[in-house]
Amino acid sequence: MTNKISKIAVLTSGGDAPGMNAAIRSVVRTCAYHNVECIGVYRGYQGMIENDFKEMGPRSVKDIINKGGTVLKSARSKEFMTVEGRKQAYENLKNQGVQALVVIGGDGSFTGAEIFNKEFGIPVMGIPGTIDNDIYGTSHTLGYDTALNTVVEAIDKIRDTASSHNRLFFVEVMGRDAGHIALNTGIGAGAEEILIPEEDLGLERLLDSLKRSKESGKSSSIVVVAEGDKIGKNVFELKEYVEENMPEYDVRVSVLGHMQRGGSPSCFDRVLASRLGVKAVESILEGKTNYMVGLLNDKVCLTPLEQAIKGSSEIDKELLRVSDIMTI
Amino acid sequence: MTNKISKIAVLTSGGDAPGMNAAIRSVVRTCAYHNVECIGVYRGYQGMIENDFKEMGPRSVKDIINKGGTVLKSARSKEFMTVEGRKQAYENLKNQGVQALVVIGGDGSFTGAEIFNKEFGIPVMGIPGTIDNDIYGTSHTLGYDTALNTVVEAIDKIRDTASSHNRLFFVEVMGRDAGHIALNTGIGAGAEEILIPEEDLGLERLLDSLKRSKESGKSSSIVVVAEGDKIGKNVFELKEYVEENMPEYDVRVSVLGHMQRGGSPSCFDRVLASRLGVKAVESILEGKTNYMVGLLNDKVCLTPLEQAIKGSSEIDKELLRVSDIMTI
Amino acid sequence: MTNKISKIAVLTSGGDAPGMNAAIRSVVRTCAYHNVECIGVYRGYQGMIENDFKEMGPRSVKDIINKGGTVLKSARSKEFMTVEGRKQAYENLKNQGVQALVVIGGDGSFTGAEIFNKEFGIPVMGIPGTIDNDIYGTSHTLGYDTALNTVVEAIDKIRDTASSHNRLFFVEVMGRDAGHIALNTGIGAGAEEILIPEEDLGLERLLDSLKRSKESGKSSSIVVVAEGDKIGKNVFELKEYVEENMPEYDVRVSVLGHMQRGGSPSCFDRVLASRLGVKAVESILEGKTNYMVGLLNDKVCLTPLEQAIKGSSEIDKELLRVSDIMTI
Amino acid sequence: MTNKISKIAVLTSGGDAPGMNAAIRSVVRTCAYHNVECIGVYRGYQGMIENDFKEMGPRSVKDIINKGGTVLKSARSKEFMTVEGRKQAYENLKNQGVQALVVIGGDGSFTGAEIFNKEFGIPVMGIPGTIDNDIYGTSHTLGYDTALNTVVEAIDKIRDTASSHNRLFFVEVMGRDAGHIALNTGIGAGAEEILIPEEDLGLERLLDSLKRSKESGKSSSIVVVAEGDKIGKNVFELKEYVEENMPEYDVRVSVLGHMQRGGSPSCFDRVLASRLGVKAVESILEGKTNYMVGLLNDKVCLTPLEQAIKGSSEIDKELLRVSDIMTI
Repeated sequence: MTNKISKIAVLTSGGDAPGMNAAIRSVVRTCAYHNVECIGVYRGYQGMIENDFKEMGPRSVKDIINKGGTVLKSARSKEFMTVEGRKQAYENLKNQGVQALVVIGGDGSFTGAEIFNKEFGIPVMGIPGTIDNDIYGTSHTLGYDTALNTVVEAIDKIRDTASSHNRLFFVEVMGRDAGHIALNTGIGAGAEEILIPEEDLGLERLLDSLKRSKESGKSSSIVVVAEGDKIGKNVFELKEYVEENMPEYDVRVSVLGHMQRGGSPSCFDRVLASRLGVKAVESILEGKTNYMVGLLNDKVCLTPLEQAIKGSSEIDKELLRVSDIMTI
Repeated sequence: MTNKISKIAVLTSGGDAPGMNAAIRSVVRTCAYHNVECIGVYRGYQGMIENDFKEMGPRSVKDIINKGGTVLKSARSKEFMTVEGRKQAYENLKNQGVQALVVIGGDGSFTGAEIFNKEFGIPVMGIPGTIDNDIYGTSHTLGYDTALNTVVEAIDKIRDTASSHNRLFFVEVMGRDAGHIALNTGIGAGAEEILIPEEDLGLERLLDSLKRSKESGKSSSIVVVAEGDKIGKNVFELKEYVEENMPEYDVRVSVLGHMQRGGSPSCFDRVLASRLGVKAVESILEGKTNYMVGLLNDKVCLTPLEQAIKGSSEIDKELLRVSDIMTI
Repeated sequence: MTNKISKIAVLTSGGDAPGMNAAIRSVVRTCAYHNVECIGVYRGYQGMIENDFKEMGPRSVKDIINKGGTVLKSARSKEFMTVEGRKQAYENLKNQGVQALVVIGGDGSFTGAEIFNKEFGIPVMGIPGTIDNDIYGTSHTLGYDTALNTVVEAIDKIRDTASSHNRLFFVEVMGRDAGHIALNTGIGAGAEEILIPEEDLGLERLLDSLKRSKESGKSSSIVVVAEGDKIGKNVFELKEYVEENMPEYDVRVSVLGHMQRGGSPSCFDRVLASRLGVKAVESILEGKTNYMVGLLNDKVCLTPLEQAIKGSSEIDKELLRVSDIMTI
Repeated sequence: MTNKISKIAVLTSGGDAPGMNAAIRSVVRTCAYHNVECIGVYRGYQGMIENDFKEMGPRSVKDIINKGGTVLKSARSKEFMTVEGRKQAYENLKNQGVQALVVIGGDGSFTGAEIFNKEFGIPVMGIPGTIDNDIYGTSHTLGYDTALNTVVEAIDKIRDTASSHNRLFFVEVMGRDAGHIALNTGIGAGAEEILIPEEDLGLERLLDSLKRSKESGKSSSIVVVAEGDKIGKNVFELKEYVEENMPEYDVRVSVLGHMQRGGSPSCFDRVLASRLGVKAVESILEGKTNYMVGLLNDKVCLTPLEQAIKGSSEIDKELLRVSDIMTI
């Protein structure tokens, strides 16, 4: 391994996700393993601009693998969208002796990294961290598996009360542009119907489906709905629509909200974060830049950042079919 | 024990709560222990009117002690509010040979039981089951302890994301008329402020408190809010108010909703349900009627139903003080 | 889809695993979706011999997707190892009109299925259900992902007490012949060392590693050990060995045991079970036999039963390296 | 409040328990609330001898209320059992300006505190922290409620596999001298039998009970056993005994072990810890010494340390009866 890099910076950016801390830990320890210095940047790109750095060694990341959130914190940075802001950030990195940057975040964060690399030539490597799983080039983003379990456990609880009262529940889950969470948790929680942005079910088909459910002897129903307005109506409008058309139903709404972003990461997310951190650092040390590390076919791999940003993460059509069959 | 009762019916009524199944199990098994027959009534009072009964023995309640919800289901019954409805219910019970009734529910359900007893003389015994802990005559209602843990676990997750982003979160928890859940989970989750119906904090004091929080070095804050309009504004209005007055804050709202009602009961709720079920059945067999069984000073005890209905469950002022000190 | 099969039986065999109920549900509902009858066999092959069958429709599998264990129960069957036993089983199936068999279990169960098919020609399809993940032809067996989370959550708790007391803990996890659970949970729980049957670390290297740990400033350590005697010493002998050689350590042992087999399945296991059940039934309806359905490269696929039985599921060498780097 | 105390030290001692961190946080913040300085002592009494102190303010205890274990760590101290050791400890406290001491631990720790007070006159206050709930003067010790939930969740998992295989499980839980954990979790987990040190069931009665269980139609059984040899046989000997006498049973053993000591504290334990910390500090400031703070009849109260040490915490006989009835 030819290694001219002697200091790497790591930051988390965008919405936080379980597993980010495990990824930070992995980046820091892989650096130490290769005798490379590592500094953490607080509050994402904004911290780079504000010189908010911290030297990190193997012991400074102990006892964080099982923690949700990000010890480096995350923030939006308007200044980083300006040339001046990025220039300041680069100067600060240079003063610290930083020669490469690992960015843990979503595609917005990767776009920033790519521009930064183009302007100043500093090697960048992305690690996909977002619960939405909406990034091209990896079958799983950090936090996604944990969020699936958080959602399914919440819907299990809601089902207790739904079936005690013969109620219909609309449960809104995260995923503004991607239905991965809704589709998988809908199947996992045994939902009677799943509404995702990728597939326009139509309101009439929803009614038909609910009526069939009722006729087939189901006394309560859960409908999982991905947030966002791409399905035409939000979850409260859906409630009104169904109440008007099926007055026999006692309809309730539950918006799961930000608890989906937190919590101790699942074993899968911790292991994935550890693997991706190793790959990110070692790829930099091998002279690579402008890639996102990811998992494809159960193997750690690299995807050019540009593709990761432009490509989209498709819903598995097989799952739509499985969902249909399961709700018979 | 003089025992002329040979058949007892049990039902769950009102909002479901974790521990109701454990209580049903306990009633059924205590009946079997004393060689008394037991039948379950489905869907509360409405099931009594519609003859929706099921014979229950020790094996028919196996593997339910750890389940949320109620296997007997629950429902509102408008018919039971009429004399005709109650008469029909009584006729049905008589036809089944039922000589006493155990009602698991809240004070609305107990009111129904009391009227039913006055009109038809059938012995009734109440078991307090509601997550709100708003019933006089017991330090704990069934489901309350479980709900506290559910809420605290959810807020722990929200705090992960709150502190990663330096955000202020308003978290709405259940408890329309009683702040028990908000007060205890607020302390348990380390909330910076707690808004409950019993104490009018006032919006200005809320602002002051948040400002002090910020000055004391806290970068994120959780405010736990009891649902209901008794604090003047709902949780979304609170968000707007704070955003207007403290624009530096990124404010979010999370309404925990019905997941608070479900889930596997805590050990405490399972043991309490077992104890209350035994006491309810044995009190009936001792010839008592029109009582609610409850827990006071860690001992199982009886409170006249009338008192349980009329009395109110006060917030412990000591806890308000503890909360104040903890948020320094 | 050419479909001459009109009735399918499903059973669970061998050690139970979370997700088995979700797989039963999927098999039953996929049958209903294709208008094929389905019967459940209780207690595995032994139930086939003893005529222990139950007709199953879509509603008979409701509310089981989130339950651990198997509603069809599982058992060892010595009789099924004899020709007479298998003949009786076949006669019973024939009397029921059963034309194909889905077996949910591990490779022992698959061996039985293969022999049964050879002797009587009845189509069989296997679904891999075991927490050990030791089956060739699938990246994940049912229950494996759930077990990983169960183990990691338990070790998180043990670490609380380990680090409060500066102790060394040996934690024994399941996996007699395969180190998948130990390796992944060891990484996931941040273990200082991992002992698996596939890799002979040697006791001296273990001591070296623990000494390095101590020198690097770690005050407490977790060593995850796969059960079985392939690493030379069991977990209690390891404790003695380390205590003799590193008397400064307060060493404790924790054998996680059978709780690893239970619990509500993770979202991943529920979705996987749903997918595999669909694939199993539809493959039978397409005229296929003697396959195991599995997941490879995130896609549902078929592997000949014979290969699934004979092949072995290899440890990913990359993970060993990641583990090494993480414990720096 | 007459207040001549201006600096208080706090330490944790003995076995760690969930809620200890919440108690440390409460002690520190209550000190700050009353403008009293607070220092933490690491590793219990040993840290006092070794001058292992840390100044603590409100922000130094943030984000620990939900953590298991103890951030101040705990240790056994042989030196503190000598006059010289205690003298050194006292000198160190005096040099720090410490005027009072809060000890979070069990009765062994309280004995040390009492002797220390007698010898040097420094005011001491105890907070009961141990999962065993074996301390006189409080209905609940810190960590007990959390441990009950941890155990019940583990047995729920074991029951999944027990009932899938029609097995008998002996589950050993903590509580060397006190059966509180075994009795409550036995009821909570629906165990068929509970063996505790306070009640000598006798092996024959155990066999009778298991036979009755089997005859009544139960196909699997859980027996919860308190650790310790007071019931004559340990859990592995019990297994052998039953296998010899009931060869039809497939008997398994599970020793839950140290995971019972860890984990995020329940809401109850967090609130209790907060209350006890306030009471401990304010009692010191009121001039009291040599008390343990505790909870009796849901109210925070004081018990002389001497009584807390000598008295014993009795099993509630009502619970034994409830347990009997539930296993019909």
